[in-house]
Amino acid sequence: MSEAYVHGYAAREKERLQDQAGTLVELLHSDTSYPRGSTVLEIGCGVGAQTVTLAQRSPGARFTSIDLAADSIAEASQRIAQAHMTNVEFRQADIFALPFDAESFDHVFVCFVLEHLSRPADALALLKGVLKAGGTITVIEGDHGSTYFYPDSFAAHAAIDCLVELQRRAGGNALIGRQVFPLLVEAGFEAVRVSPRMVYVDSSRPDLVDGFTRKTFTAMVEGIREPAIAAGLTDPERFDAGVRDLYRTTEADGVFCYTFFKGVARK
Amino acid sequence: MSEAYVHGYAAREKERLQDQAGTLVELLHSDTSYPRGSTVLEIGCGVGAQTVTLAQRSPGARFTSIDLAADSIAEASQRIAQAHMTNVEFRQADIFALPFDAESFDHVFVCFVLEHLSRPADALALLKGVLKAGGTITVIEGDHGSTYFYPDSFAAHAAIDCLVELQRRAGGNALIGRQVFPLLVEAGFEAVRVSPRMVYVDSSRPDLVDGFTRKTFTAMVEGIREPAIAAGLTDPERFDAGVRDLYRTTEADGVFCYTFFKGVARK
Repeated sequence: MSEAYVHGYAAREKERLQDQAGTLVELLHSDTSYPRGSTVLEIGCGVGAQTVTLAQRSPGARFTSIDLAADSIAEASQRIAQAHMTNVEFRQADIFALPFDAESFDHVFVCFVLEHLSRPADALALLKGVLKAGGTITVIEGDHGSTYFYPDSFAAHAAIDCLVELQRRAGGNALIGRQVFPLLVEAGFEAVRVSPRMVYVDSSRPDLVDGFTRKTFTAMVEGIREPAIAAGLTDPERFDAGVRDLYRTTEADGVFCYTFFKGVARK
Repeated sequence: MSEAYVHGYAAREKERLQDQAGTLVELLHSDTSYPRGSTVLEIGCGVGAQTVTLAQRSPGARFTSIDLAADSIAEASQRIAQAHMTNVEFRQADIFALPFDAESFDHVFVCFVLEHLSRPADALALLKGVLKAGGTITVIEGDHGSTYFYPDSFAAHAAIDCLVELQRRAGGNALIGRQVFPLLVEAGFEAVRVSPRMVYVDSSRPDLVDGFTRKTFTAMVEGIREPAIAAGLTDPERFDAGVRDLYRTTEADGVFCYTFFKGVARK
């Protein structure tokens, strides 16, 4: 009986996470679709989590999805095949050395990529080069500085700051969400329109408590414990106190807020 | 000619601010309306800015609007008369000594009030007392900790922190927006549902740059310059640098974010 329960629970957990993923997919991607026959370049597809969503939402568009990592490309290809989608072609490529002719694509899609780049405006300018005149670019980025919660906690903010600092030292910018507008303008795009996508979590939304606050955001912070300590940004006691306070926000009276930014612009 | 221009500009300014006020009214109040014949208690109506909106959006409901300050009540009455509304009765009263029988109202509306109270949960419990069973309460509050911007600035955050600290010393809580959910739950309300109302401002939204970032938020921070310095929380140089950096966010590449929280619950 207990084994059956465990399986049942695991199944429910999986369902929950899918609901959660569904909620975020809806929040970030529900207003993205491309016309039949149009060509779309997806940058940094990773293991294809978003590629499947993109391809399914625009079955008549043809996607070219690139990533730096060959193993990610392999996994992404498998996911697309499992989803029975045939409108995606994968290529291993670098955003700073794009293997495409100028003005090759009708649209470009960039999600959770600029945060890792030391020259995001340069990257956007290169993407503008492979985009046809009149085509659109869509950029989605998070912003860790948009994080606040109840109960408030200095230790939790300090733990998040470790993540921001590590990303900065790696050449990235974890506060880039708020810069989507100026970056698109700087790269020379027209009709830039940015809209925030805020994730608000309290205990009346248990899927988000579990799927977002606990398993997405706090898990991500926990993941940098060792490097943050090794870099001298914190010590085990302080860091663990911060993580505990992040988990504290998942209790019945807790609240957690985070905001993604989505920008759409035209060449 | 220059005089005519100045007048024209002033008129355009006024129009802009009305547009801006309209945008915020839409953001905060567009989903609040009360049925014909229902009775609504508005707490802390002040000079009636929101009372006019409430009354116009629910012309068949009867409002009782209270405030501590007699002169505010007088101004609010005048506004309502100028708007030709006849469904509002004003009373000078204290939220902690409500002059109403138990279960007198179908609905209660509380906007920008809890942030000033040292016992917000007690206030909500008292409001629950005058609310009929099955009636609703609506609570709207800002949260200064939801403020972030580009370019980021330590000085600007420090200036905002002065405002938060002064409000705390006065017994209030400028970070109360994120607590709307736990406060309503603590006060014993049912079916508590909170939704964030984020104000996102970049230079593609000039009405918000001027009406919100400049004339609402930054003006509010500037307004506590003298008391913050007198309280030893800052010095003129540091404070002015913070205010300058807030204005800096209103330039062409600047971005400014702030979030209000709206909670609706049932008794």
